[in-house]
Amino acid sequence: MTENSASDLTLEEKAALTSGADFWTTKAIDRVGIPSVMMTDGPHGLRKQSGATDHLGLASSVPATCFPPAVGIGSSWDPEIIERVGAAIGVEAAIEDVAVVLGPGINIKRSPLCGRNFEYFSEDPIVSGVLGAASVRGIQSQGVGTSLKHFAANNQEFDRMRASSDVDPRPLREIYLRGFERVVKDASPWTVMCSYNKLNGVWTSEDPWLLTSVLRDDWGFDGLVVSDWGAVNDRVAGVAAGLDLEMPSSGGRTDAQLVAAVRAGELAESVLDTAAGRAIDLVRKAGRRPAVAGPLDVDAHHALAREAAGRSIVLLKNDGALLPLAGDRKVAVIGAFATEPRFQGAGSSLINPTRVDTALEEMRAVGGENVSHAPGFAVEGGAIAASGRSADDLRAEAVEVATAADVVVLFLGLPAAEESEGFDRDHIDLPAEQLAVLDAVLEANPRVVVVLSNGGVVALPFAERVPAIVEGWLLGQAGGGAVADVLYGAVNPSGKLTETVPVRLEDNPSFGNFPGEFGHVRYGEGLLVGYRWYDAKGLEVTFPFGHGLSYTTFDYGAATAEVRSDGDVLVRVDVTNSGDRDGREVVQVYVAPTTSIVQRAPRELKAFASVLLAAGETRTVELVVRREDLAYWDIRVDRWVVEGGAYTVDVAASSRDIRATATVDVSGDEVRQELTMNSSVGDLLAHPVAGPIVQQAMGGMLGGAGGDAAGASMMPNDEAMQKMMASFPIGRLAGFPGLPVSFEQIEQLISAANAEAPTAG
Amino acid sequence: MTENSASDLTLEEKAALTSGADFWTTKAIDRVGIPSVMMTDGPHGLRKQSGATDHLGLASSVPATCFPPAVGIGSSWDPEIIERVGAAIGVEAAIEDVAVVLGPGINIKRSPLCGRNFEYFSEDPIVSGVLGAASVRGIQSQGVGTSLKHFAANNQEFDRMRASSDVDPRPLREIYLRGFERVVKDASPWTVMCSYNKLNGVWTSEDPWLLTSVLRDDWGFDGLVVSDWGAVNDRVAGVAAGLDLEMPSSGGRTDAQLVAAVRAGELAESVLDTAAGRAIDLVRKAGRRPAVAGPLDVDAHHALAREAAGRSIVLLKNDGALLPLAGDRKVAVIGAFATEPRFQGAGSSLINPTRVDTALEEMRAVGGENVSHAPGFAVEGGAIAASGRSADDLRAEAVEVATAADVVVLFLGLPAAEESEGFDRDHIDLPAEQLAVLDAVLEANPRVVVVLSNGGVVALPFAERVPAIVEGWLLGQAGGGAVADVLYGAVNPSGKLTETVPVRLEDNPSFGNFPGEFGHVRYGEGLLVGYRWYDAKGLEVTFPFGHGLSYTTFDYGAATAEVRSDGDVLVRVDVTNSGDRDGREVVQVYVAPTTSIVQRAPRELKAFASVLLAAGETRTVELVVRREDLAYWDIRVDRWVVEGGAYTVDVAASSRDIRATATVDVSGDEVRQELTMNSSVGDLLAHPVAGPIVQQAMGGMLGGAGGDAAGASMMPNDEAMQKMMASFPIGRLAGFPGLPVSFEQIEQLISAANAEAPTAG
Repeated sequence: MTENSASDLTLEEKAALTSGADFWTTKAIDRVGIPSVMMTDGPHGLRKQSGATDHLGLASSVPATCFPPAVGIGSSWDPEIIERVGAAIGVEAAIEDVAVVLGPGINIKRSPLCGRNFEYFSEDPIVSGVLGAASVRGIQSQGVGTSLKHFAANNQEFDRMRASSDVDPRPLREIYLRGFERVVKDASPWTVMCSYNKLNGVWTSEDPWLLTSVLRDDWGFDGLVVSDWGAVNDRVAGVAAGLDLEMPSSGGRTDAQLVAAVRAGELAESVLDTAAGRAIDLVRKAGRRPAVAGPLDVDAHHALAREAAGRSIVLLKNDGALLPLAGDRKVAVIGAFATEPRFQGAGSSLINPTRVDTALEEMRAVGGENVSHAPGFAVEGGAIAASGRSADDLRAEAVEVATAADVVVLFLGLPAAEESEGFDRDHIDLPAEQLAVLDAVLEANPRVVVVLSNGGVVALPFAERVPAIVEGWLLGQAGGGAVADVLYGAVNPSGKLTETVPVRLEDNPSFGNFPGEFGHVRYGEGLLVGYRWYDAKGLEVTFPFGHGLSYTTFDYGAATAEVRSDGDVLVRVDVTNSGDRDGREVVQVYVAPTTSIVQRAPRELKAFASVLLAAGETRTVELVVRREDLAYWDIRVDRWVVEGGAYTVDVAASSRDIRATATVDVSGDEVRQELTMNSSVGDLLAHPVAGPIVQQAMGGMLGGAGGDAAGASMMPNDEAMQKMMASFPIGRLAGFPGLPVSFEQIEQLISAANAEAPTAG
Repeated sequence: MTENSASDLTLEEKAALTSGADFWTTKAIDRVGIPSVMMTDGPHGLRKQSGATDHLGLASSVPATCFPPAVGIGSSWDPEIIERVGAAIGVEAAIEDVAVVLGPGINIKRSPLCGRNFEYFSEDPIVSGVLGAASVRGIQSQGVGTSLKHFAANNQEFDRMRASSDVDPRPLREIYLRGFERVVKDASPWTVMCSYNKLNGVWTSEDPWLLTSVLRDDWGFDGLVVSDWGAVNDRVAGVAAGLDLEMPSSGGRTDAQLVAAVRAGELAESVLDTAAGRAIDLVRKAGRRPAVAGPLDVDAHHALAREAAGRSIVLLKNDGALLPLAGDRKVAVIGAFATEPRFQGAGSSLINPTRVDTALEEMRAVGGENVSHAPGFAVEGGAIAASGRSADDLRAEAVEVATAADVVVLFLGLPAAEESEGFDRDHIDLPAEQLAVLDAVLEANPRVVVVLSNGGVVALPFAERVPAIVEGWLLGQAGGGAVADVLYGAVNPSGKLTETVPVRLEDNPSFGNFPGEFGHVRYGEGLLVGYRWYDAKGLEVTFPFGHGLSYTTFDYGAATAEVRSDGDVLVRVDVTNSGDRDGREVVQVYVAPTTSIVQRAPRELKAFASVLLAAGETRTVELVVRREDLAYWDIRVDRWVVEGGAYTVDVAASSRDIRATATVDVSGDEVRQELTMNSSVGDLLAHPVAGPIVQQAMGGMLGGAGGDAAGASMMPNDEAMQKMMASFPIGRLAGFPGLPVSFEQIEQLISAANAEAPTAG
């Protein structure tokens, strides 16, 4: 490829370069030697369509390693393993000559109902951002691009291609964009994919504020913005807003619109040049990919998938150390998912796996004949369902098998048809039939380990009654082996929840506002997403954000926190593996200012580290809270502001298991606003120049009113009177008849005050 | 007064007429014989300032009867008693030559923290509207005007003069404006008072949408819009928007602005003519008031105040029929409020009462020497506080007195300084000192009746432990007598809660969004205000909306519901007083469609009736649910729409005590929208013309993708595929490469479909 720029191209060629040739590839411009490149779905493996692309891009794909989806691997809280998995995906992409893998997806899990939650990392933006950045780094380490998606505020599938996510500035910046900002700044993804939805009434595919002001001007993104497949509403408006590449092809229809718009003077050709230049840059980057020798090392990648899956599993409960299982225990394995695993979600991320482990086989590889089995129930589309056995029959058999065992491992989960890209759930319950099997089995043998397979959070009404619960999420093709590793202790579980397990769907912050109607969904819970809500409301949860057990125990020493010279906060804590088994602890740091002039969650996660500790080992763990992550978005001045003052730094094993607390004093950013006639009396009183003058004037006024000896004042006391008066805009008060101070005098005072204490930023 | 119109006036005179002469009166234009008229604060009595007005309008006022504030009288759920009280206030206004009483206030109690909740009726718009209309009718029956306030969405005191209430269209129309609409349409208040706040970013005092499009064009209001005192931000913008009268005087400053704006052509003189004409109309109406002979019949009005207060009391709990008290029971009266009553709230509504009853004296008038007393605790500003006795001393004495009695009546409540116009509470707890007295007294004598004095809802953590609870709210000057009437059974209590008593503040729907910051408060809970939220979330409450007990019992027969020829729904139910004491029951009708295409609360109050039944009497109660009250606000077409179909009609003794249920089929309003390229596949499939054609085309498409024999589909089953496809805008799908149908063919289909099934209203 020669080093082209858009200036070598005709108008038609530039328009052509900024849309797809077909479903998956960009257009080559042979005349100037620009080749076509391919993008494929991701992000937890490659979905490269095999054979000819069909008209919807839905057909089957070449075999690829199915790594754990984000819901699984995210539970590792470990950028390192995610980066290694990303690198492996990059290798597979390179072997298949794929230039860009369409991922990672880092949208916030606003509601547990979102059908695509399994593709996302967390309800928290720092977790999403740190892990998303790791994924980008991993994939791009192989010379393969990523597409950070879905930008932005795409938190549901319902009416996803039309609904406007109506989000106020603070939650938008602090929750929904913060993770994107982090990935863009830390990992420079080659591309960002705009979402299908509207944001505050504007299609994200044609939102100049989002695609240019925020993404490029504020964050410094210099890659390409690609549309989600079919997300372009108005191509010309899109290009003007900062959308560089429409996918898939429009068959030339929208290219012609671009050409016409430039010819008509409605779109500056320089804008199209910029988009085309970014398309050329992308092709150029792809062209620099080092050659990779195939074929794919299926075994090695499967082994990595198993390791990653083992890191994805969250041990929610383990009363009486029921786990790990000894190999000689009689174990009854029950539940369809033991033999018909659910290991990924449906939709564009669906991988055609190179192979699939089952938990039953992998457990038998350890426990041999000590492992008995009964399906317990059937799931749609599986062999058990095909056998035609009745639910009663299956349940009766399960009870029989459970009765004869020392321990029951019961695999429960969501049927594949209940969660997918393209639609949301309308409840978070496990199927009643499965719960009935659980009840029957529990009655026969209370020593039950429940292993869950689910992409979205499910309610666990049995959490009190079941001694051990293993959250297996969706674990990819090697999940069966990983579950066996954890159950038998070959792997000491270390995953933690990146989302809250609520008691009831109704407790969720978006309940009542999800999924909206008639094209609008109001993010009415504002900042209080996920654990921020449960903590602020003091709600009981089944398992809190950040929770996860181990087969060993960890002790925390005292924590210290200090501001470094670069402004970031260094947190130090000694963590000891106090058990007799090597293990990994996810140390979490939550921060909150002790007082604030704005709404704050009781605590917000700001840093975390996954730490491997040998039995008995103590290590000083250092975590860095970035100064920028302490900031709130200030709507008065439309920028990030760090409040000065004391911050509480909680070092924790989960959001509700604080192990050590430190306090740190942080210097604040200055925010000064000009006084106006709509400034309140309180604003004036707080002003260094105007304050003393107003104080004197107010004293006289209040004395004349509140202290009227002729009868009762209408206010209960002076403090109340002052509270009421403080909220009066000075201009309104100044306009009142008979006031000893004139409107003009107040205007002069304000003018003088602003001159003496100029606005600073 | 001659019959003037604005055309007789000079520009300066017109400007002058549309603002105040001083704090309380309009300007006279002597040249053409237009007199000045006076407005005074209300609305549960007259606050006419005595002597010269001070510069803030805060000084003491002439004596007037203090009737129960809205929080009290609203608990009657009875327009009849409210209308009678209104008429009495009208008489007092007429005697004082007051043209307009500034009330009623009907803002929705969005949060229990709002400092002014005691001035408002309910968390429900129908209750607010029906009772507000009764108040207007009563006052205006005397030839005295009212000012319906505060228009609109003024639901907090925090930053009330600047904050923008950011409310989505449905909650705005269905919750916050619905009551105003009802009062305007049913009772034609002479004036409407705009509020201080902004609504969705626009000052209500200068919002043409609110003051003209909604108020006048939609609702037909033909009276005058007056600013709240100091609510004018930009006088010229205000007049242009439909604000007719600025209060108080601006000393001529803003009049000059108006004149200048007309001269500069920035404001059409005809607009000012309209405002001035409305001011003249108001003066003219006031001039027609029949002469009323003073002086005020203080005794008669005090008696009415006592009757009204008796109707305001809500018996929350009465285990073991502890109440009513027999006159010969030894009763210990404890609590400062028994001798230092809190009977009204602070701020502009504060009345200088003609006299004040205390509960202790009134109880002794019945129980004589059987009534013992101990203050128990002190409240700020009272004689007990002045005595300087310690809390321990007071509590010890209370325990002693309680121990010696058969029954303890313990008066608890909020100190006056905790609730007022001008600021909000930051918690809903009773003072810890009072709760300590309760605990001590309960331990000494479990037979405790708690009588509450509070303007805003308080948490009742003792609700389980105390056998009887009387919610006395703020009862006006005769509240002491009314409490004695209820405690001793002279009055059988009949009040019911117009707002939910939550278990915790955190359970409240506005928690987390109240009171906002930096000039914005997001009404994030949307439609789910008050009981709508608690019901939708399935939250436990301490006492539900609509709850209230009686000394008798009421049985409900089966309910029927039928659509009348005028479209309204007539609900009939037989209610029997099944006890041995005459009593009054508030029969409530809650309605919900059995299915809906939009969000709906589980049930919404739509009608109610206060019914007096003699012991043993059965009556068929008829309640009318207006068709318009079944409607939701449809944001697709910006109008009210009644959905067709079945509605559940619950006849209830409270929102959580449904006694009978009927179902009624209602014919719907037609809503048809044109198809566009952004209509979804689902929209097209549902369309009578396009549907069958698209169905056929889709069948082919899906068959080719979902059923690919070469490998797994990316969707779990056909139903899932159809769900995903249904949400695709047809124009996006039509643009995809290789689709068997062209973009142009889809355009033609849509065009043809719209032509065959034209948009209808």
